Amino acid sequence: MSRIAYVNGAYLPHAGAGVHVEDRGYQFADGVYEVCEVRGGHMVDQRRHMERLVRSLNEIRIRLPMPLAALGVVLRETIRRNRVRDGLVYLQVTRGVARRDHYFPDPATPPSIVVTARALDPAKGEAQAAQGIAVITVPENRWERVDIKTIGLLPNVLAKEAAKQAGAREAWFVDAAGNITEGGSTNAWIVTDDGRLVTRPAESGILRGITRTVMLEVAETLQLRVDERPFTVEEAKAAREAFVTSATNFATPVVRIDGHPVGDGRPGPVARALRENYHGRAEIGH
Amino acid sequence: MSRIAYVNGAYLPHAGAGVHVEDRGYQFADGVYEVCEVRGGHMVDQRRHMERLVRSLNEIRIRLPMPLAALGVVLRETIRRNRVRDGLVYLQVTRGVARRDHYFPDPATPPSIVVTARALDPAKGEAQAAQGIAVITVPENRWERVDIKTIGLLPNVLAKEAAKQAGAREAWFVDAAGNITEGGSTNAWIVTDDGRLVTRPAESGILRGITRTVMLEVAETLQLRVDERPFTVEEAKAAREAFVTSATNFATPVVRIDGHPVGDGRPGPVARALRENYHGRAEIGH
Repeated sequence: MSRIAYVNGAYLPHAGAGVHVEDRGYQFADGVYEVCEVRGGHMVDQRRHMERLVRSLNEIRIRLPMPLAALGVVLRETIRRNRVRDGLVYLQVTRGVARRDHYFPDPATPPSIVVTARALDPAKGEAQAAQGIAVITVPENRWERVDIKTIGLLPNVLAKEAAKQAGAREAWFVDAAGNITEGGSTNAWIVTDDGRLVTRPAESGILRGITRTVMLEVAETLQLRVDERPFTVEEAKAAREAFVTSATNFATPVVRIDGHPVGDGRPGPVARALRENYHGRAEIGH
Repeated sequence: MSRIAYVNGAYLPHAGAGVHVEDRGYQFADGVYEVCEVRGGHMVDQRRHMERLVRSLNEIRIRLPMPLAALGVVLRETIRRNRVRDGLVYLQVTRGVARRDHYFPDPATPPSIVVTARALDPAKGEAQAAQGIAVITVPENRWERVDIKTIGLLPNVLAKEAAKQAGAREAWFVDAAGNITEGGSTNAWIVTDDGRLVTRPAESGILRGITRTVMLEVAETLQLRVDERPFTVEEAKAAREAFVTSATNFATPVVRIDGHPVGDGRPGPVARALRENYHGRAEIGH
């Protein structure tokens, strides 16, 4: 089946889905995005993703290209046309097309919007979670506004590629104080020796992950003790468990950090419990 | 006359010049660029711009999409087809088109290349230089690798738009130590009270501007004393002169910083002399 992309009002065959060379997303990374899990054909936590999209757009003063209800229709239609049952839907909004100039273009310039969707094999994610992943640490070198979900992802690309070259799946950024901020495309968590769940506060140097937020709720229902505080690489290496969260990873155990085994080097019970209970807590659309 | 853009091997009418929605430049800012002045139909400092392009590509491990000689032909042909005598040629290279995934795609993926050219009115630049521009200062918030000329320019876009909103043309980034790093799209310079030219070393926190390099040579021929060292906002406000350099600004005097007049509030003789002697020193193609 051929893929379909929604681009500025039209559903186009994926192969021919293009944007203008002077789209500000292409020349300035002047745009934001969201990735939403699709499960059983429905979006997971759409409401929260749309809230975050609106926040990201507001922060860089791009207007929402259409009302959220209409955007919901486009997202669902793109999922439907691509016949995605389990996978993801990707949405990107940029400041539109204008002659190249750093300053914002005429406010009448319509923002550009692209939506794609694709299937993911759930068995693959499950296998990865069962085995656990390796992460490396890299120095934090990104801009200060990582709280905005922009398409300016080159630092993340370079960090994740470095992970791959080292035989790992994810890279954790480490700030000047030696604390882990977040991963290239995931949030970072540990379980301490006394069983406390630790993740960095969303107010400081990270993106407020939707899955992260939901996991905090899951942790509460599981009566886990949670500390939202920074943690160091050393603490993570000495932790009982470590794991990452994201819309497509849910909770995925980390079993090696810079080559050091975490705990007994195998996925642990807390990450497993969070993963198993995640979709019971997430909002799944109809 | 209709504009023409070169896109991945074809010269296309500008209005229809597109790239794929999954071009990594569009989804990850995974690419680099150069802007070269065109003067009398010829590129200015092409050799140095191509050297810097190669360096930028090497730093993020994108391969050069074609030999430099062939690239020169494309640049000249794009200038010719757009009948640009005085203006600029813009070149952007990205890691190509691949299903969205942070990791580098298959190494066989061809990089994408886009070249555009357009005329600029020299009289407009001269008028701006004669009048001088205002700048504002903003906190440095960009990633650490600003030495690479990437298309991840959102921080620059936001800074320059803030300048515009404040009635200024340029924003100067100021680091944690209170030193000016560089402008949103220019390098920053001052002339001290005792007549010394000061600009930040290119080894630290800035892009190595081609025009900056040429101006250092011009300064030498003019027997100006130059200090390559960081300088503070306070120093800049108290300076005899201030100015910015870039491929399209040459040297343009700064007459106001955050609302404070620089010197007597008018363009000064050092900036003027550098501007007047710049093209005598630059390499102009044939």
